[in-house]
Amino acid sequence: MHTCTKANLPRVDALSEPFINRLRKAVAIPSISAEDERRQDVFKMGDFLASELEAVGAQVEKRYLGKQPHKEHLDLPPVILARYGNDSSKRTILVYGHYDVQPAKKEDGWATEPFELSIDEKGRMYGRGSTDDKGPVLGWLNVIEAHRIAGISFPVNLLMCFEGMEEYGSEGLDEFVREESRRYFAGIDAVCISDNYWLGTEKPCLTYGIRGCSYYSVCISGPSQDLHSGVFGGSAQEPMTDLVRVLGSLVDTHGVIQIPGLMDLVAPITDEEKAIYTDISFTMNNLYESLGSTTAIFDDKERTLMARWRYPSLSIHGIEGAFSSPGAKTVIPAKVIGKFSIRTVPDMEPDDVDKLVFKFLKDEFAKLGSKNTLEVSLQHSGKWWVADPKHWNYSAASKAAEHVWGVKPDLTREGGSIPITLTFEEATGKNVLLLPIGSSTDGAHSTNEKLDKKN
Amino acid sequence: MHTCTKANLPRVDALSEPFINRLRKAVAIPSISAEDERRQDVFKMGDFLASELEAVGAQVEKRYLGKQPHKEHLDLPPVILARYGNDSSKRTILVYGHYDVQPAKKEDGWATEPFELSIDEKGRMYGRGSTDDKGPVLGWLNVIEAHRIAGISFPVNLLMCFEGMEEYGSEGLDEFVREESRRYFAGIDAVCISDNYWLGTEKPCLTYGIRGCSYYSVCISGPSQDLHSGVFGGSAQEPMTDLVRVLGSLVDTHGVIQIPGLMDLVAPITDEEKAIYTDISFTMNNLYESLGSTTAIFDDKERTLMARWRYPSLSIHGIEGAFSSPGAKTVIPAKVIGKFSIRTVPDMEPDDVDKLVFKFLKDEFAKLGSKNTLEVSLQHSGKWWVADPKHWNYSAASKAAEHVWGVKPDLTREGGSIPITLTFEEATGKNVLLLPIGSSTDGAHSTNEKLDKKN
Repeated sequence: MHTCTKANLPRVDALSEPFINRLRKAVAIPSISAEDERRQDVFKMGDFLASELEAVGAQVEKRYLGKQPHKEHLDLPPVILARYGNDSSKRTILVYGHYDVQPAKKEDGWATEPFELSIDEKGRMYGRGSTDDKGPVLGWLNVIEAHRIAGISFPVNLLMCFEGMEEYGSEGLDEFVREESRRYFAGIDAVCISDNYWLGTEKPCLTYGIRGCSYYSVCISGPSQDLHSGVFGGSAQEPMTDLVRVLGSLVDTHGVIQIPGLMDLVAPITDEEKAIYTDISFTMNNLYESLGSTTAIFDDKERTLMARWRYPSLSIHGIEGAFSSPGAKTVIPAKVIGKFSIRTVPDMEPDDVDKLVFKFLKDEFAKLGSKNTLEVSLQHSGKWWVADPKHWNYSAASKAAEHVWGVKPDLTREGGSIPITLTFEEATGKNVLLLPIGSSTDGAHSTNEKLDKKN
Repeated sequence: MHTCTKANLPRVDALSEPFINRLRKAVAIPSISAEDERRQDVFKMGDFLASELEAVGAQVEKRYLGKQPHKEHLDLPPVILARYGNDSSKRTILVYGHYDVQPAKKEDGWATEPFELSIDEKGRMYGRGSTDDKGPVLGWLNVIEAHRIAGISFPVNLLMCFEGMEEYGSEGLDEFVREESRRYFAGIDAVCISDNYWLGTEKPCLTYGIRGCSYYSVCISGPSQDLHSGVFGGSAQEPMTDLVRVLGSLVDTHGVIQIPGLMDLVAPITDEEKAIYTDISFTMNNLYESLGSTTAIFDDKERTLMARWRYPSLSIHGIEGAFSSPGAKTVIPAKVIGKFSIRTVPDMEPDDVDKLVFKFLKDEFAKLGSKNTLEVSLQHSGKWWVADPKHWNYSAASKAAEHVWGVKPDLTREGGSIPITLTFEEATGKNVLLLPIGSSTDGAHSTNEKLDKKN
């Protein structure tokens, strides 16, 4: 949260107690956007955030987005807009975050109550939302407050946009951002999003790229209803037999995608880009720790990071319609739907990827000589995003991070998608910076989510 | 139910009303063995059956099997044993059936209330248990009663054994049958089981063989927990990628099992056996109707029936641990378990099949060069069973069926398993006859289960 200032703020440590108390109050509100019965808590959290923003001197507006699509009995929680500073001689930074959280129950395996902030002797603050994304959101309030108390002028104007539906598809936000880009967000100079994580635990980073994702369903069907394998095994062509063969043709154990032409869409690597990977603070042990195993595709850091950030990957997620419970069931499923997705990178155009995928699946299925029926569809696609890391938004953030941490932050990319990044970039036309606050071990969507005090 | 008598029983039609009323009362008792809260109804159905048996003149005993394993709060329902006739000059036939039923709810898609017998204009009697197996069980009572009313001596002594846990694994029955084979069942001459179905709807059949089933799990694991495909796709070897490839190597679209040596275990077909298939009343349209499609492996009756009855088949049932719900989830599952089973036939020894399967999966997995871990296990295996269709038990049944239906019944086999068949044969050492009562369209475990009046 010190990104946008280069001033010394010596009293920040003295402020840590009130900062933690604010996070404690926020964590105590179970603002779970995915659970209907918690919607009132999402609203409560929005009110809390708005009043805290007002308390530090921001001008706050609540913007209501109407009813929730497909759940018309629910009101969407408001987008909290706030402005801090309006000095035309300063740059204006648009900040995005969210105040809703993932579901959490003690019995899921939490060591502490998920909606009570618990701090251990190492300064790890446990609680749902601590790192995703209440901690980072309140970080902006902390930095404003620290400046005020230190009597130091804030170096930029801040426009803040905090939503309450991020963990449930950011319902309504895309349209809102596009509309406000000509109104409330007009005149901003850059965007800063704090909703991702450091690559490791010790070194800060700035994130300038995200892979896209094209998610496909491949449905194979034959009989009109599920069959008993004792009665029909051997006499009917089984959709599941066809499906595992088709899915098995997509990618190999070493991650090599078997779809002809797909790799030709990938932008070749330049020497300049290649050089970035060598210095990045990451070891194979970091990967093995995250995996909980040594089942990595590559044995070296460079190829691992490239595979994660700048090359496509294909993952098979599962099969709908087949037997998926523990135990034994002798069913021949009548209709099975394989799900897989491709992480896309520059310069893969989603439409081109779709064409290659559809053709490949059709060809592979044709080879089987099956009487069953194949249907392939795209479930959703989100495009990759890459920013220019030489933009002043990045150099300023880099200097600020170096000031706080004593080390130049790594320039990283993300393998996963944060679709709102692209929306902000396209709607505002401005450089977007992803400024991760939490570390790689925070467990954003898991049990025992935490944020380290130092972060 | 006329199998064991060759006498004319002209007043049977006049009796149909009381017979149907008895079935109506039985169907009204929801004796679902798989649902804890229905256990009292299973006991109630046992009491009803015992009192009906006494009413037709049988000597009845209820045998309690103790507590249900793994569900110690539940008592197992009694096995109802009954004797009708004790004339040493007559043969004694042991009859097996069950009085529990599968679960059923109107909202599953029943056109009528599942626990109210509803009869349509075509004489189809709808209701849970109508054909599986309350109808066939009560059929034995009907035939006793018809003889009594007609004043005709019953041609054999009947020993009846009706259990209440068949739809939940016949808990405790195997041991019970083995023990009683030296006591209550001592002195029987043959066994008759009515718990399967005609091959079609028009021609009766006698069933002299059943395929066995060996059910396998193949587990592939790597990371210690599920991963996000955006973050780890491309850098981790994915268990699901390996699993679909291994499963895809087992069998092809045309049902050809790819496991070397497996087909060598199958008994070669003789000319005598081959000749049986030609005359069997079955058409490809019968198969297409059951499938609800024309996605059959073979285009001719003979190869279809052989594939179903006398050759092994391999079906892939599903995958545990992967994403199996509707929608899109970008997970890399950490541990996935493929389930498949092989229907076995003479002379495949289950142990030999296991060895070939384990070796094949190990070899296929080794080809992938994966760092993940493979574990293969046998979940359960039931052996195939074939009786001698030239035994007097079959010729008597054949003559009786011909007398009733005016046509010699087909000699058929079953693709699926009825494990209790083998238990009875092994425990008593006597010929077992499977005497199907219901027809192929009855939908035993489905919604709208029915039994035709004529059957």
